[in-house]
Amino acid sequence: MATKTVPTSTVPQGTAYGRPPQQSNDEWTRVGPGTPCGEFMRRYWQPVLASTSVTNRPKEVRILGENLIIFRDGEGRPGLLYPRCMHRGTSLFWGHVEKDGIRCCYHGWKFDVEGNCIEQPCEPKSGLQRAEHRQPWYPVREQYGLVWAYMGPPDRIPAMPRFSCMEPLQDGEVYFAVDNSMGSHGDINGPETVPYSWLHMNDNIMDPFHVQVLHTTFSVVQFVREFASMPTVKFEEIGNGVVYKAYRTLEDGREFERVSTWMLPNIMSVPSIELAEGPSTSLGFAVPVDDTHCRILMCTRADPDYNPMGRNVGMAKLKPWSQMTVEERQDRPGDYEAQAGQGPMSLHSEEHLVTSDKGIAMQRRTLNREIEKVMHGGDPTGVAFDEADAMIEVPSGNFFT
Amino acid sequence: MATKTVPTSTVPQGTAYGRPPQQSNDEWTRVGPGTPCGEFMRRYWQPVLASTSVTNRPKEVRILGENLIIFRDGEGRPGLLYPRCMHRGTSLFWGHVEKDGIRCCYHGWKFDVEGNCIEQPCEPKSGLQRAEHRQPWYPVREQYGLVWAYMGPPDRIPAMPRFSCMEPLQDGEVYFAVDNSMGSHGDINGPETVPYSWLHMNDNIMDPFHVQVLHTTFSVVQFVREFASMPTVKFEEIGNGVVYKAYRTLEDGREFERVSTWMLPNIMSVPSIELAEGPSTSLGFAVPVDDTHCRILMCTRADPDYNPMGRNVGMAKLKPWSQMTVEERQDRPGDYEAQAGQGPMSLHSEEHLVTSDKGIAMQRRTLNREIEKVMHGGDPTGVAFDEADAMIEVPSGNFFT
Amino acid sequence: MATKTVPTSTVPQGTAYGRPPQQSNDEWTRVGPGTPCGEFMRRYWQPVLASTSVTNRPKEVRILGENLIIFRDGEGRPGLLYPRCMHRGTSLFWGHVEKDGIRCCYHGWKFDVEGNCIEQPCEPKSGLQRAEHRQPWYPVREQYGLVWAYMGPPDRIPAMPRFSCMEPLQDGEVYFAVDNSMGSHGDINGPETVPYSWLHMNDNIMDPFHVQVLHTTFSVVQFVREFASMPTVKFEEIGNGVVYKAYRTLEDGREFERVSTWMLPNIMSVPSIELAEGPSTSLGFAVPVDDTHCRILMCTRADPDYNPMGRNVGMAKLKPWSQMTVEERQDRPGDYEAQAGQGPMSLHSEEHLVTSDKGIAMQRRTLNREIEKVMHGGDPTGVAFDEADAMIEVPSGNFFT
Repeated sequence: MATKTVPTSTVPQGTAYGRPPQQSNDEWTRVGPGTPCGEFMRRYWQPVLASTSVTNRPKEVRILGENLIIFRDGEGRPGLLYPRCMHRGTSLFWGHVEKDGIRCCYHGWKFDVEGNCIEQPCEPKSGLQRAEHRQPWYPVREQYGLVWAYMGPPDRIPAMPRFSCMEPLQDGEVYFAVDNSMGSHGDINGPETVPYSWLHMNDNIMDPFHVQVLHTTFSVVQFVREFASMPTVKFEEIGNGVVYKAYRTLEDGREFERVSTWMLPNIMSVPSIELAEGPSTSLGFAVPVDDTHCRILMCTRADPDYNPMGRNVGMAKLKPWSQMTVEERQDRPGDYEAQAGQGPMSLHSEEHLVTSDKGIAMQRRTLNREIEKVMHGGDPTGVAFDEADAMIEVPSGNFFT
Repeated sequence: MATKTVPTSTVPQGTAYGRPPQQSNDEWTRVGPGTPCGEFMRRYWQPVLASTSVTNRPKEVRILGENLIIFRDGEGRPGLLYPRCMHRGTSLFWGHVEKDGIRCCYHGWKFDVEGNCIEQPCEPKSGLQRAEHRQPWYPVREQYGLVWAYMGPPDRIPAMPRFSCMEPLQDGEVYFAVDNSMGSHGDINGPETVPYSWLHMNDNIMDPFHVQVLHTTFSVVQFVREFASMPTVKFEEIGNGVVYKAYRTLEDGREFERVSTWMLPNIMSVPSIELAEGPSTSLGFAVPVDDTHCRILMCTRADPDYNPMGRNVGMAKLKPWSQMTVEERQDRPGDYEAQAGQGPMSLHSEEHLVTSDKGIAMQRRTLNREIEKVMHGGDPTGVAFDEADAMIEVPSGNFFT
Repeated sequence: MATKTVPTSTVPQGTAYGRPPQQSNDEWTRVGPGTPCGEFMRRYWQPVLASTSVTNRPKEVRILGENLIIFRDGEGRPGLLYPRCMHRGTSLFWGHVEKDGIRCCYHGWKFDVEGNCIEQPCEPKSGLQRAEHRQPWYPVREQYGLVWAYMGPPDRIPAMPRFSCMEPLQDGEVYFAVDNSMGSHGDINGPETVPYSWLHMNDNIMDPFHVQVLHTTFSVVQFVREFASMPTVKFEEIGNGVVYKAYRTLEDGREFERVSTWMLPNIMSVPSIELAEGPSTSLGFAVPVDDTHCRILMCTRADPDYNPMGRNVGMAKLKPWSQMTVEERQDRPGDYEAQAGQGPMSLHSEEHLVTSDKGIAMQRRTLNREIEKVMHGGDPTGVAFDEADAMIEVPSGNFFT
């Protein structure tokens, strides 16, 4: 029925009409129980919160799509339990912590940090069948100022990983840990979690080029002005991750080599953004809250006067993120805006990876290989079953010559 | 491909990994039109609001998953209508109440409390086909200070139920009714409805043991300290419900028998929580708003100076619920926390009913039987089709010897 | 099993029990890509925002179910782009506008208003494959104070429509445009969009009778008191729309003829509500934001002291909509309440169109015909492919004799 012909010269090219359906790669972003990435992630110890956030007040925490309750009993032991009381399902969030466990508010059942039911006051003789009522729980450990959990198959529990950059503590050093996603918004008072997939932060970490644009030349110097020159970069796959080396000649004539490391499954070793010289002394983790939310945790060994907000970086002199208006964030976007701007899950079918995305391509190849391995019953790279094998070498650092 | 073996001694037992899928029992919790429980509930008169809440200002009310408009016309008649005007669908919430009905704002159609269209001002001769435009409505009655509705099949409309505990009024007594779910949060200024299934409150009512824990020994004495001793309890099925008798020997040597009654389908007769002696003088109702919300209504016959917040109970001396922080609610959880803590719908597949849950088991057996009966075309227990049969005996009370 | 019989006299008639399932007519309300109405709407130029709302600060705009970014480059050219940067998907909302385009915050890719990628700073030689990375865009034009877009198939792009009521500008006249849905709530500070389908406002416009009820006699005089008399109305289909002529004899003896026009696909020409005499000098548009939201835009040619809030209408003396409480809105509902009261999408299966809805019936017949035509490959009525055919005659006006 169309009868008129539109002259070719006026037909617009490349419009947004008729775009194909968009999609995320679910194998990277879905992290719930039983999903390929979820099962892969569960094979590693994951940091849950900073040790200082785990107290005798029960706290709700969501990790890998599971809602859990975390607390520290009167003896100092952290516990991570399934939230619904085994009895009639009331949340242990409303429970009270005692010396040896947590007591449900409704009928007083008490569970220790490993889920054993140790009291049922409304039952004859305090509960003769208590042993059948074990509250589901997850093993936890404390290390580097963080509480870690293992949420995978019990018979594949690995040894706790250790990292060369985190130990030993030097004279006077202590561990600092933050669990409020400062690695995204840079604000100690910002939101605890960020509303996007763990993969956004993961991608960000093997992307040395955005440092030049987003953090330095696009609006203001968010870190230091040395990043204003575009680096020459070498990427390298190292089996349990990817390393990049970014080279710059500084204005004062020094050669600056910045080495940054990403490790399986979601571990980030970024050297000091204040350009402190030498090997890195911190680690970061992009821990999935669920498919569309992430918590970024960081631990550092440093002197007691360490300030996680930074002292000499550009951002430290600006209004903190949580106080900025949307317009101010448009004027000076940072990692939060760039990553949240990719949406709750990025649409991988629409990406166009180019030369500068080589590190991301390596990461994804590594992730694909390891997810595949776990799907087929194997153990992923980067887990050790013997404590003697549990130390991981981390080459990150700022080096000047 | 898994090559390493984890020593059996280090394999954790009973962890939360690999839990089976959770599920609610839909036959108890789904209450919309056409659902087994919804049709069962619709066979009884249900209280909608307190009479004092029904005025000449139209109000939105949601009950059994249906959105409705309730109002009182200029002659004092309550009306409960389908909200979308039969004409072009504007909500009667924006209508104005007149002496003989409610008028839609858009084109002025006027409907009486039984849905008859009595005016169509934009139509020739004020609407010659008005009779074809009856607005869907539900029959309502007022009793005990409440407005009740019958939302079931028209040809199964029962006589209005009466309750022995509510009449006759003694000298000087009047009816009080509250419709804001105080039975959950205890706060006359608290939210009108609660964000969980009617079944949570229903379960709560045949659970005498939580009174000892949640309301007395867990944090503070919310009612009276006499409840601090664990009772001996007898449960009994009575055809149209379940009764429990809780026995305690008080410190002053008296024997205390507390009789509490649950009646089909969602009626609760709890004796005075201030331990006023004698038969109960009130009733409560856990009326489903929808599958995941509930309104708790109460009516009481009492002297004109009756205070529904209680005078001598522990809670009366504490900060009201709606002013408490989450931390304060964690310190002193009550029925709201215990029940909301079970989630919008409890996950029955995960419950472990024990000795102290015998009353709940009886209730559920009764519910299953009656829902089944209605599904097969029968009339449920507890409805009468003749006013002469409509009085229901309620044995509840506090008795001391 | 039902054993008792309810006497026929007590069986209520016409109750809300057992209503059939409700449904909207999706062919009118669904507007996303690929839907019948969505593809029909996309065949016309649609106004997006007022020209004054399009600045060098990128703005998110949603239209026909698509999220887009609109901005004006440093040379004054408006641009309407797909929001996700072609590179790694960050939203261009966080980009900065430059003289010749918009630059993404993450890696600095710059696109002009037609989506051409003109810079890739992190790539060798600023991006040798830039031509492959065209950002999806839509053609835009400015006219009558509005920015218009064509979102349809490129080879069916029509000439920009012109309207007889909008030109030529008379001596001293200028164009005013508002894009904040004042046509619904009447408040220059009210919400930009309204939470209901475009069809509600569309219906409203060929409904002369609600003016007598809703706007005049129901609560207060919202426009002028001349509308208090019920008009005699003639409706007429005009090929590209519907016209009504409403006749009233005024108190001063004058005969008043009010001519109002609806044009394909969603264009409204309502004469002055202050009853300014003569042909209409404005146009309105009910532009779908998505299936359940709409933006109402208006353009007017008028003297520079024109006040879009009206000067002499009843509403101008009342509290503005955005400051009213719900109760005040119940007391004095207007178009917003009547239309939002129909729900996010009206339930057409429940409507009862009567004599006074004749104009709406004509509109729907026209819509059905044109949507059908587009579904079968035809060009809809009201689009021209030659500028010489692009002028549309609009008969609206207030005429007194």
